[in-house]
Amino acid sequence: MKTYTVAVVGALGVVGSAMIEILEEQNFPVKEFIPLDQADQVGKEVVFRGEKIKVKEATKGAFEGIDFAFFSAGGEASLELAPIAVEEGCVVIDNSSAWRMDPNVPLVIPEVNSHDLDWHHGIIANPNCSTIQMLVALKPIHDVYTIKRIVVSTYQAVSGSGKSAMEELQMQTQDLSQGIAPLVEVYPHQIAYNAIPHIDVFQNNGYTKEELKMVQETHKILDSAIKVSPTAVRIPVITGHAESINVETEKPFNIEAVKRLLEKSPGITLWDAPEKNRYPMPLDAAGKDEVFVGRIRRDDTLENGLNLWVVSDNLRKGAALNAIQIGLTLIHKTIGK
Amino acid sequence: MKTYTVAVVGALGVVGSAMIEILEEQNFPVKEFIPLDQADQVGKEVVFRGEKIKVKEATKGAFEGIDFAFFSAGGEASLELAPIAVEEGCVVIDNSSAWRMDPNVPLVIPEVNSHDLDWHHGIIANPNCSTIQMLVALKPIHDVYTIKRIVVSTYQAVSGSGKSAMEELQMQTQDLSQGIAPLVEVYPHQIAYNAIPHIDVFQNNGYTKEELKMVQETHKILDSAIKVSPTAVRIPVITGHAESINVETEKPFNIEAVKRLLEKSPGITLWDAPEKNRYPMPLDAAGKDEVFVGRIRRDDTLENGLNLWVVSDNLRKGAALNAIQIGLTLIHKTIGK
Repeated sequence: MKTYTVAVVGALGVVGSAMIEILEEQNFPVKEFIPLDQADQVGKEVVFRGEKIKVKEATKGAFEGIDFAFFSAGGEASLELAPIAVEEGCVVIDNSSAWRMDPNVPLVIPEVNSHDLDWHHGIIANPNCSTIQMLVALKPIHDVYTIKRIVVSTYQAVSGSGKSAMEELQMQTQDLSQGIAPLVEVYPHQIAYNAIPHIDVFQNNGYTKEELKMVQETHKILDSAIKVSPTAVRIPVITGHAESINVETEKPFNIEAVKRLLEKSPGITLWDAPEKNRYPMPLDAAGKDEVFVGRIRRDDTLENGLNLWVVSDNLRKGAALNAIQIGLTLIHKTIGK
Repeated sequence: MKTYTVAVVGALGVVGSAMIEILEEQNFPVKEFIPLDQADQVGKEVVFRGEKIKVKEATKGAFEGIDFAFFSAGGEASLELAPIAVEEGCVVIDNSSAWRMDPNVPLVIPEVNSHDLDWHHGIIANPNCSTIQMLVALKPIHDVYTIKRIVVSTYQAVSGSGKSAMEELQMQTQDLSQGIAPLVEVYPHQIAYNAIPHIDVFQNNGYTKEELKMVQETHKILDSAIKVSPTAVRIPVITGHAESINVETEKPFNIEAVKRLLEKSPGITLWDAPEKNRYPMPLDAAGKDEVFVGRIRRDDTLENGLNLWVVSDNLRKGAALNAIQIGLTLIHKTIGK
C-alpha cells in the first residue's frame, strides 16, 4: 500500500491533537509524520505511533516533500500558509473558515459530497462543526424527501473555542463553588451555569458569523435551494455539540421510514428509544466518531414536518475526524483511478 | 385598603420560598400569613416580614378563614387539596399542572389574558414556566401581526425540578472536579456538562409532556389557531430558562417596529444590542421579574419570519411571581367592580 508524508499544522492545539490521534486510529497510511506549529512552539514534542516527534515551524519551505497537510491553526495562518503549502506540493485540508466559501475550494463532508473532491486545486476546506453534524443527519432525508427549510437551534460545547475555553469553564465552576468571583476572559460573559446566544462575530443583519456559516455552508455542500434559519448558542458543556432541528420536506414521509433510512445511512447512529431514556447527549457523544440522531418525531404543524435532535463530538466529526476522512477519501479516489 | 389572609401551600419548597419573598416584595395586602406544607414539615419555620411563623399541615380544615391559597406542592396535593380549599372559602392559585387544562379553570398570565380571571370558580391555574415567558414575549406580536406558527427550542434550568436538582448539579460539578464519579439521582442522566432533551414524561407521539404543555397552554391562553412545534431541553444552568423562538406571522412587519412594540409592552425588557454583546442570558435574568427579549432579527426563509431569544427567571415570572400577580390582579378587579 502506498504511504504518505503527513503534516498537522497547529499540532499542539485541541483540534490538532485530535487530528494526530485520529490519524493513528484510522490507520492513515503515514510514511512520515511531521508536526508543525508556530515559531514559539518549535521544539515541543508530540507523540505519534509511540514515537516522540519534535514540532517544527510552519513556514515557507516546511511543506516540501509533504503529501497531506492538515491545517488547524486558525484563519490567518491558513490564508498565509495554505497557498505556500500547495505550491510546495501539498494537498491542504484546512479546518479554518478562511477558504470555505472560496469558489475554487471544495467544502467537503465525505458522507455528503465526496464528489466535490474531484475538482480540488490543492486546498480542500473542512466545514464548520455545526454544519457537519447537521448535514450528515439531513443528507439522507434530503435525498429522498427534498428538504425545503430548516430551523435549527444549537447547544454548543466550549471546546470549539480551544483549550483556554475548556479551562475557563472548569475554572469558573471551581471558583464559584468556593465563592470566588470567576474570571471571564475567553467569552464576553461567564459561561459556567449560563447560556450565551453569541458565537463568532455579529453581522449587520443581527445574525452571528457562526449562524451564517450554517446557512452558506449548507448551500455550498448540500443544496442552495434549502432555506436555513439558525440560532447558535454556547452552553456549559466541554465537548459535544447538540442541535434541535426542525425540517420541512417537499415530499410526504412515514416517520418509521425516516428512522430506518437514518439507521442505515453512513456516519449516523440512531439513539431513539425515549421509553428507555435513550436519546443522544453531548456526554455520550464525546470521544465517539458518529453523528447521533434521536427524538425523531413528526411535526404536525406542517404538512411534512419533522423534528430531530442531533449530537456529535465537535472536535472529532465536527473537525479533526472529518478532515482525516477527507484525506482518506482522496486516497481511495486516487487508487480507484 | 382591604387586607387578606394568605397561605402558601408547599411553603418550604423552592417555588414556595420564592412566593413568600414575592408576597413581601410586591406588598401583597396580607393581613395574616399562613405557611402550609406536608405533615412531616409541620413545626418548621419560615420568615415573613421579619416574623418567624411555624408551618402548619396542609389538610382539610386548614383553609378555613384563608382568602388566597398559593399552591406549589405538586400535582397530587393540588388535585386533592385545591377543591377542599375552595370549599372552605379560598381562592386557589395553583402552580402545578394538575388543573391547567380543566375547562372550568382559567389558566392565566396577567399580561396576556387577565380577562379569563372573570370566569373562575375558585381555582386558577398558573401556566408552565416555559409557556409563561414565551407568551409574555409573543402576545404583543400576535396582537398586531397574528402569529401562525412557532418553532421553539428551550434551554431550561435545573431549579425547575426543585432543590434536589439544584444540589445535584452543583454536587456533580464538584465531584467531577475531584475526579469522583458523580451521583445521578434526580435526572435520568448526569446534567453537569451535559444537555438532556427530556423534560417530564414521554408521550406516545414522541413528545414530552413539557413540550405538549407549551402547545396546549398556548392554545388555551393565547389562541388555539397558533401552531407550536416545541423541543424542551435541560441544560446545566441553575436558574433562568432561555428559549430560541422562530415565529411566522400572518401580516408583514418592520423589524424595528417589532422592537419598539416589545419595548413598550408589559412585563418585557428588551436587551438587544449585539454590538455591545448585550442579549439576555440566564445568569442576568435570575432574580429579576421581567421577561427579557433579545436577538430579534428577521428570518428571511419565510415571507414574514422572525427569530428571537427569550430569557426569564423560571422560579419568579415562570412560577411564583406570575402566581402572586394573578392574586394581585384579582384584587384589583374586585376593587374595580
